[in-house]
Amino acid sequence: MHDEEPAGTDLLTPQARSTLESSGYGSWREIAKADAVSLAFGFPFPESFPTDELAHSVEVVFDAEGPQALQYGGGEYATRLESFVREREAARGIDPVETSVLLTNGATHAIDSICRAFLEPGDVVAVERPTFMGSISVFENFGVEIDGLAVDDEGIDVDALADRLETRRAAGEPTPTLLYTISDFQNPTGATLSLDRRKRLLALADEYDFVIVEDGAYTDLRFDGESVPPLAALDDSGRVIRVGSFAKTIAPGVRLGWLVAPEPIRDAIDALAAGGTNTFTRSVVGHYCDAGHFDDLLPALREAYATRRDRLLDALERHLPPEATWTEPDGGFFVWIELADTVDTDELLDDAIDAGVTYLPGSMFYPDDGGTNALRLSFSYADPDDFDGAIASLADVAADQS
Amino acid sequence: MHDEEPAGTDLLTPQARSTLESSGYGSWREIAKADAVSLAFGFPFPESFPTDELAHSVEVVFDAEGPQALQYGGGEYATRLESFVREREAARGIDPVETSVLLTNGATHAIDSICRAFLEPGDVVAVERPTFMGSISVFENFGVEIDGLAVDDEGIDVDALADRLETRRAAGEPTPTLLYTISDFQNPTGATLSLDRRKRLLALADEYDFVIVEDGAYTDLRFDGESVPPLAALDDSGRVIRVGSFAKTIAPGVRLGWLVAPEPIRDAIDALAAGGTNTFTRSVVGHYCDAGHFDDLLPALREAYATRRDRLLDALERHLPPEATWTEPDGGFFVWIELADTVDTDELLDDAIDAGVTYLPGSMFYPDDGGTNALRLSFSYADPDDFDGAIASLADVAADQS
Repeated sequence: MHDEEPAGTDLLTPQARSTLESSGYGSWREIAKADAVSLAFGFPFPESFPTDELAHSVEVVFDAEGPQALQYGGGEYATRLESFVREREAARGIDPVETSVLLTNGATHAIDSICRAFLEPGDVVAVERPTFMGSISVFENFGVEIDGLAVDDEGIDVDALADRLETRRAAGEPTPTLLYTISDFQNPTGATLSLDRRKRLLALADEYDFVIVEDGAYTDLRFDGESVPPLAALDDSGRVIRVGSFAKTIAPGVRLGWLVAPEPIRDAIDALAAGGTNTFTRSVVGHYCDAGHFDDLLPALREAYATRRDRLLDALERHLPPEATWTEPDGGFFVWIELADTVDTDELLDDAIDAGVTYLPGSMFYPDDGGTNALRLSFSYADPDDFDGAIASLADVAADQS
Repeated sequence: MHDEEPAGTDLLTPQARSTLESSGYGSWREIAKADAVSLAFGFPFPESFPTDELAHSVEVVFDAEGPQALQYGGGEYATRLESFVREREAARGIDPVETSVLLTNGATHAIDSICRAFLEPGDVVAVERPTFMGSISVFENFGVEIDGLAVDDEGIDVDALADRLETRRAAGEPTPTLLYTISDFQNPTGATLSLDRRKRLLALADEYDFVIVEDGAYTDLRFDGESVPPLAALDDSGRVIRVGSFAKTIAPGVRLGWLVAPEPIRDAIDALAAGGTNTFTRSVVGHYCDAGHFDDLLPALREAYATRRDRLLDALERHLPPEATWTEPDGGFFVWIELADTVDTDELLDDAIDAGVTYLPGSMFYPDDGGTNALRLSFSYADPDDFDGAIASLADVAADQS
């Protein structure tokens, strides 16, 4: 066969080449392969995965529906999952008459499908800065300009956003078509957007006419404090699309997410979708949820993650130097840490891995330059008994670089 | 909440609106709901789905790997599925060193991911005319010009393609970036691209520098005649991407497909992908295949589909009028029928449903106007004992319109 570069590679789009080059394709695998305490990834701890209940649901589904569960469209249990999600979102205050649910192959698939319906090259997408790198990648694929908005412990700085929008409008520059926010226990900062800011954000969306994509991947995992109504529940004008996922609760491997949106928007996204969902998994998870297992699972998960968070915060308190700061999230998986200005967490990573601990450098979460002295720690995956030693090691290598 | 049109609908892209309007969103559901013998869809018959074996594989996977099968990336069985696919493709003559496999959430997801890597608005995509409407929709989403190529019983008319390319080049018009072909038992015509034409197609791809996407959704379902080597096995220059799926063999509900491509192309497509695959299903199907069940399944499937084809062809012979013509495929799910020129199969459909039979009108398979007097029948799904009566009814309503 061909000894040279495959001829087809010449035909990749410039965007495809640029994504391949800039994606750090492979670097994640290096971190994942490291023989170290993993505080890097947003993996749920596997002991939480309900393998027995899911295996039982497989049996029940096949007994009840036979092969229909494996046909295009699926059977009754695949449909029940949609109802289950709709009822849960309605319980959060989202109008079940005006909105409609679309199940997807995970939350990222949902976000990608939304982009397809709303974005054209050159459009502006506003995101939190820092934000989930997986979503940044999805937006970048659409050839848009990404505008990062500062976040503090109440989420997006809405005053700064108002100024930015005003400036853009005054300068005749395009304002965002879409704003993406992880409104609860944001990835990576752990911040939750306050109710007051949610309302002001919706007012700005009306004034400047943009769509809000509210990523609720962690909403079900609140351990402390009161729930804040979703943007989608506060939306009076039909411009919020809420995204959810079972990845962080049931398990990533079921690869099931959803979006809830005003019905014409949901239908447009569905019409653009390439291929359907996995009816096997939909049916199995449909039975699992319908049987009440999902509602039973959540309290135990919240308790486990709260303990994990506390153990990590204790370790940070014990080992990090006074100049370090960190967030104290009420839910989710992540703590965001800023070290001394002199520390470069990209450079620090190799030393940290050698010392037995992995994290993700802050720069990975920025759509532009930033986060040099920051890092994200996940308390969701590693054995909590290893947290203290891992943070001690991290503090040591950071001290060497300071 | 909002009494009027949701504000967000104003922000849909023109492409999204056009897709929603032109997709016949909902018309499929009408056909699917009809109380009639369904010869419309490419659904495999559900009695063929290996529910017992898959349920057993769920148990084995959880026993062997526990929750790892549900984690991001999955465990050993998820990896084995990739090896199984690679070995099967290698057995078809595709170089396992130069190429690499990417598992996807179904074949359509694979095709969509390929488009993302190669297509920009205004590019030209060459397709068979008629071809699978699901793929036409995917291409349309990318804002490309779709150029339909005539097919006969040996597949794409390569002479006509050569002329078309020459004309385009002479006129200074863009030549295709990508050519899409369902090389074996084409949907909807059932035609298989001959070996000679495969070689000439590859030579044209070299001369005019385009990528070939070879959709092998039906390749494993050959009942008669000799296999023709895949384009991907004949490719010397690294420009063929082959797509496959378990939808038509194991079951649609497992929503698992793959592509095999020169490694740098596979990696670029992977880097652009939004979200991963379903590791639960991958693991279960990984065990299923690894245990030899897939290889055991195929002979029975081929025999069952051959019988179904024969029963349908018999019914056509018995009932259709002399002016009707149809294809006689060596594999796959479909027979393509052309009725008298005076028949409009779009208009005929309501009468056919009233008479107790559904089909898909020919026009659905054309990227442009065409197929008015044609229709596709699927022998894959309905009870073969119903074929004769259904075709008699179809012949009756068609005679009324002639």
